[in-house]
Amino acid sequence: MRIETICTGDELLTGLTSDTNSRFFQGALLDRTGLTVKRSVVVGDDRDDIIEALDAAAARCDVVLVSGGLGPTSDDLTAECAAKAAGVALVQSDQALRHLVERFEARGIVLSENNRRQAMVPAGSEVVLNAEGSAPMFIQVRGRCTLFYVPGVPREYRHLVGAFVVPRIAALKGGAEVRKLALLKTVGLPESHLDERVRPLAAKYPNVTVGFRTHPPENHLKLLAVGTDEAATSALLEQVVAEARVVLGATCFGRDDETLPGVVLRALRQRRQFLALAESCTGGLICELLTSVSGASDAFYGGACTYLEAAKTKWADVPEGLLAQFGAVSAESAEAMARGVRDGTGVTWALSTTGWAGPAGGDAQNPVGTVYFGLAGPTGVKVEKHRFHGDRERVRSFAAFAALDLIRRSLEGSPS
Amino acid sequence: MRIETICTGDELLTGLTSDTNSRFFQGALLDRTGLTVKRSVVVGDDRDDIIEALDAAAARCDVVLVSGGLGPTSDDLTAECAAKAAGVALVQSDQALRHLVERFEARGIVLSENNRRQAMVPAGSEVVLNAEGSAPMFIQVRGRCTLFYVPGVPREYRHLVGAFVVPRIAALKGGAEVRKLALLKTVGLPESHLDERVRPLAAKYPNVTVGFRTHPPENHLKLLAVGTDEAATSALLEQVVAEARVVLGATCFGRDDETLPGVVLRALRQRRQFLALAESCTGGLICELLTSVSGASDAFYGGACTYLEAAKTKWADVPEGLLAQFGAVSAESAEAMARGVRDGTGVTWALSTTGWAGPAGGDAQNPVGTVYFGLAGPTGVKVEKHRFHGDRERVRSFAAFAALDLIRRSLEGSPS
Repeated sequence: MRIETICTGDELLTGLTSDTNSRFFQGALLDRTGLTVKRSVVVGDDRDDIIEALDAAAARCDVVLVSGGLGPTSDDLTAECAAKAAGVALVQSDQALRHLVERFEARGIVLSENNRRQAMVPAGSEVVLNAEGSAPMFIQVRGRCTLFYVPGVPREYRHLVGAFVVPRIAALKGGAEVRKLALLKTVGLPESHLDERVRPLAAKYPNVTVGFRTHPPENHLKLLAVGTDEAATSALLEQVVAEARVVLGATCFGRDDETLPGVVLRALRQRRQFLALAESCTGGLICELLTSVSGASDAFYGGACTYLEAAKTKWADVPEGLLAQFGAVSAESAEAMARGVRDGTGVTWALSTTGWAGPAGGDAQNPVGTVYFGLAGPTGVKVEKHRFHGDRERVRSFAAFAALDLIRRSLEGSPS
Repeated sequence: MRIETICTGDELLTGLTSDTNSRFFQGALLDRTGLTVKRSVVVGDDRDDIIEALDAAAARCDVVLVSGGLGPTSDDLTAECAAKAAGVALVQSDQALRHLVERFEARGIVLSENNRRQAMVPAGSEVVLNAEGSAPMFIQVRGRCTLFYVPGVPREYRHLVGAFVVPRIAALKGGAEVRKLALLKTVGLPESHLDERVRPLAAKYPNVTVGFRTHPPENHLKLLAVGTDEAATSALLEQVVAEARVVLGATCFGRDDETLPGVVLRALRQRRQFLALAESCTGGLICELLTSVSGASDAFYGGACTYLEAAKTKWADVPEGLLAQFGAVSAESAEAMARGVRDGTGVTWALSTTGWAGPAGGDAQNPVGTVYFGLAGPTGVKVEKHRFHGDRERVRSFAAFAALDLIRRSLEGSPS
């Protein structure tokens, strides 16, 4: 099966935005079907270019995924070009219009003439409504080629590609092959170490493909079992997952859809315990990660982002004298922040961060990238010093994940 | 001038690596010459696909930049395909071979037969030695089209593209067209409304292209002025930017590289004022956005993520009775949180959020997506109620940006 992608959008050709969507599709397609994309094309918002690209791809492919250019503005040309290239009219989809009207009514916004354009699709195409946005997805068949048209907004793209496009391609492909995928997620383990640890597994199981995915600060081990029988392939995968978990030990925090904040909250919930935070250099990021999980309020008290020294005193009861004596970035501060928040709020666990995220700040003893963590719990306060590398964003994100991993390991070592 | 890019490499089509090189070229090209790339193609390591892509691009372009596939291994096919597509032989470049021999000798490594392949180029092409690596760059002319072939290793690519390719394209272009780009950024204005507001501008200035970019929760207006004279084109762009700013009014928060958190911090800094937060449903996200800006500590005090009711009382001094009477998601709570944090910390501005991010929670009066904002400032407390749509992540992100925009507008309306 020959598969190609076409993305439209001037912004993808001027160095401002890169096409991250295609990478998502490529990965999902490979995992689910074993197929790879043969060509990936980006064209600007130009009718002739779009039509030429559609015609050339339709002539040589079994499947084409087209994204972008389905919005309500005058530079959104994809539906019009799709109709023109196939030599059919652009017609109104009543189903798509109803979806638009309902969506706008629910928001109390008036549907403009521009928005109505989003209900226009090439005659003969199949419409799939988009639960994440106003523009529908549509599917067009030209000869032996099936063309999927999806919006380019990443959230909408990912939803539609994951829920409709990739499953439809898998159905078009047919065949007897069974593929089962597992992801084991680690934090704090470099990819090269991960590779060395699991290499013996790869040699032992020829029907399981071992791969890696880097999602900084996490590294994921990808295990893909291929076979002809559903049950046997699942059993093979579970066996390799079990062996990999032994090899990875405590560095593996979860599997598949599990997230580090989700795992931490679940462990707290199981123990009927609460966590509170005092964040300095991570600036609210750990809070944000924990509260991104729905239902966090049954295990998460809240967090103080104690950015200024005054805030450390006000919200985390850190004595002013201690900050003056040891500095805000110190083991003593981290300890006092965690202890102060734990005592002040009455939670079981309090976690603190203080460090230099950069690019400014730091000194010889605590250069940029240095972060102290404090974890106050039932048996006292533990302090750790880490050094992270990279820019401000990277230091903050690695520090936030390391802090969550510290509380995870401490919880796993404590009674459930 | 029509310019396209072709990148080769299977790794760019399996979701593992994305093509960051093209984005570098696009940006450098636009900055240096004002030209934009019309199409960007990625093909795998397959002879037929590479040759077909080269022929199609050479037939319609003035310039093609080809990258990747110039290494020493057997899946490096670009030089061979470039020769075959042009119908010429692959010949040894003595200059390139000398460079290879010297490079390897300097490193004390023996030149392998594979490495010698890197000195083979299509007959008639111009060779440019590569100071950063072993594979040379070569330039091939086919009819009216100039094709540049550069290695895909990012360091080598950037060096050769910056030092040779872009300057050569500027020379080919000669003293023709000048292009100047501006982005105006808005929040809280749907893309379709943005389009309607600026449509008269597009009609008035035929030499300025008006486009849109959606970066939820922001929408950006893109203005591209085209002319023949550097100063006149800049002046034209500035005139349209000034008119667009009038049309957009207060919905426009910044231009080009400016960010909403950065604009808020700058406005505070100019007034020597500090901001503190009490976040409930946004869960630390506003904190995180503000502290992602280096130097935030000269205008940002910190924030309390008051997730549980107890946290609202502890850190934002909200009376327990008030929460019991009105509920945590209420105008009264938002007001009390902002007032409590402002009084407790001594800052000039305190901003609060409380609402239902979903999917759980909400009631008839305050359904999921309802968020109350409180802003306590020198003249009292202002409360706003908003309703956002979409999933938890979307509600939180739209609420965080709306909150930042509330403080921005209040600052802009207050003495500087």
